[in-house]
Amino acid sequence: MRAEQPRRARGPRTGQADTRAAIIAGARQAFEAHGYDTASLRGIARRAGVDARLVHHYFAGKEDLFVAAMALPIQPAELLEQLDDAEGAGERIVRLFFRVWDSEEGRRSFKALAGAATTNERAATMMREFIKRAVVGRATAIFEGPDAELRATLLAAQMAGVAQLRYILRMEPLASASVEEIVRLLAPLAQALRDPKPR
Amino acid sequence: MRAEQPRRARGPRTGQADTRAAIIAGARQAFEAHGYDTASLRGIARRAGVDARLVHHYFAGKEDLFVAAMALPIQPAELLEQLDDAEGAGERIVRLFFRVWDSEEGRRSFKALAGAATTNERAATMMREFIKRAVVGRATAIFEGPDAELRATLLAAQMAGVAQLRYILRMEPLASASVEEIVRLLAPLAQALRDPKPR
Repeated sequence: MRAEQPRRARGPRTGQADTRAAIIAGARQAFEAHGYDTASLRGIARRAGVDARLVHHYFAGKEDLFVAAMALPIQPAELLEQLDDAEGAGERIVRLFFRVWDSEEGRRSFKALAGAATTNERAATMMREFIKRAVVGRATAIFEGPDAELRATLLAAQMAGVAQLRYILRMEPLASASVEEIVRLLAPLAQALRDPKPR
Repeated sequence: MRAEQPRRARGPRTGQADTRAAIIAGARQAFEAHGYDTASLRGIARRAGVDARLVHHYFAGKEDLFVAAMALPIQPAELLEQLDDAEGAGERIVRLFFRVWDSEEGRRSFKALAGAATTNERAATMMREFIKRAVVGRATAIFEGPDAELRATLLAAQMAGVAQLRYILRMEPLASASVEEIVRLLAPLAQALRDPKPR
C-alpha cells in the first residue's frame, strides 16, 4: 500500500501494464511529431516519463513500438517471411494479408491508418517511412532481379488498394468476396511482382 | 442591357458559363446529399434553379455531370475503351491511367477524392456508386470468363492503390518512377485480370 504517496498528474503507475501503456502513448506522440525515421527510443522514454532501459525491457525496438503504438494486427516481419521461398510466395502473402486485416480489429485498424494518412501530412510521413523500412525494405531484400524495390512497392500498393476498396469503399463484389476467391486471383499477380518474367 | 432587373441572391446569371456553373454546383450538392445512384437530373436542376431541359442541353447525362462536378480529368468511357481489344489492353489502360492522373490537375483531383472518400461516409457512398457503375460496370461488360466483375474491381483496386502510394503517400521509388517503368511492370498484371489463364 502506498496510500500516502501524492498522486502525480498522470495518475499513479501501479504496475507493468501502466508502464507499458505510458510507453505506448509516448511512442504514438513521438511518431506523430517526428515521423518514424526520426523518432528515437530516448525521446519516447522521455515522453513516457520512464528510463530508456525500461523501454528496451518492454519492446524489442522501434519497429515493435510502432506496431504497438498503431495497434497493427501483425508484425511486418511475420507477414514478409511469407515471401522467403519463391514457390507459392504470392499465394502465402496474399492469404496472410487477408487473414490479418479481415478481422474486426484489422479492419478498424486499417480504416484509422488510411484516414490519418490521407488527411494528415504528419501521419502520412510516419506511415510512408514505416512501410518503406519495415515492409518494402524487407521485400526488397528478398526479391531478385532488377527493380526489386519498385516491384516491392507495387506489391504494397496492390494490397493497399484492395484493402481500400474492400474495407473503406466496401465495393461489391470485392467487399463480400471470400478470401479464397481473392487469393486465387491475386496470388499470381503477387508472384509476378516477386519473380517477373525476363523481358 | 438588363440593368433595371433586380439582382437575385445568387447574382445575375448573365451567360452560359454562369448557367453551367450553377448546374455543376447543384450536381455536386445533389451527389453528396444522395449518392450517385439516387441523385436525379430533376433534383440537380432544382438545386441549380434552372429547368431540367437546360441540364440536358449542357450535359449528356448523369455520368457527364458527375465528371464535371468532381472535376475528374477524364471520362470513364474514354479510359475503359482501352480495354476493348484484348491485345495490349493491359498496357493501354495502365498507360492512359497515368497519362491522365499524373498531371498537376489529376494529382490534385485524386487527392481531393481520396481524402473525401476516406473520411466522409457520404462521399464514400457517392464514389463507390460512381466507380461501380461507370468504371467497373464497363470493364465487366468487356471482360470474359468467370468472376468478370470481381476481376474488374481488382483492376480498379490495383490502380487506386498505386495512385495512393504514388500521389498521397509519395512512397519512393514509386513516387519518382517514370510512367514507362510502371507500365512495364503493371501492364501484365492488368492483362492477367482481363484475361486470366484457365485454372
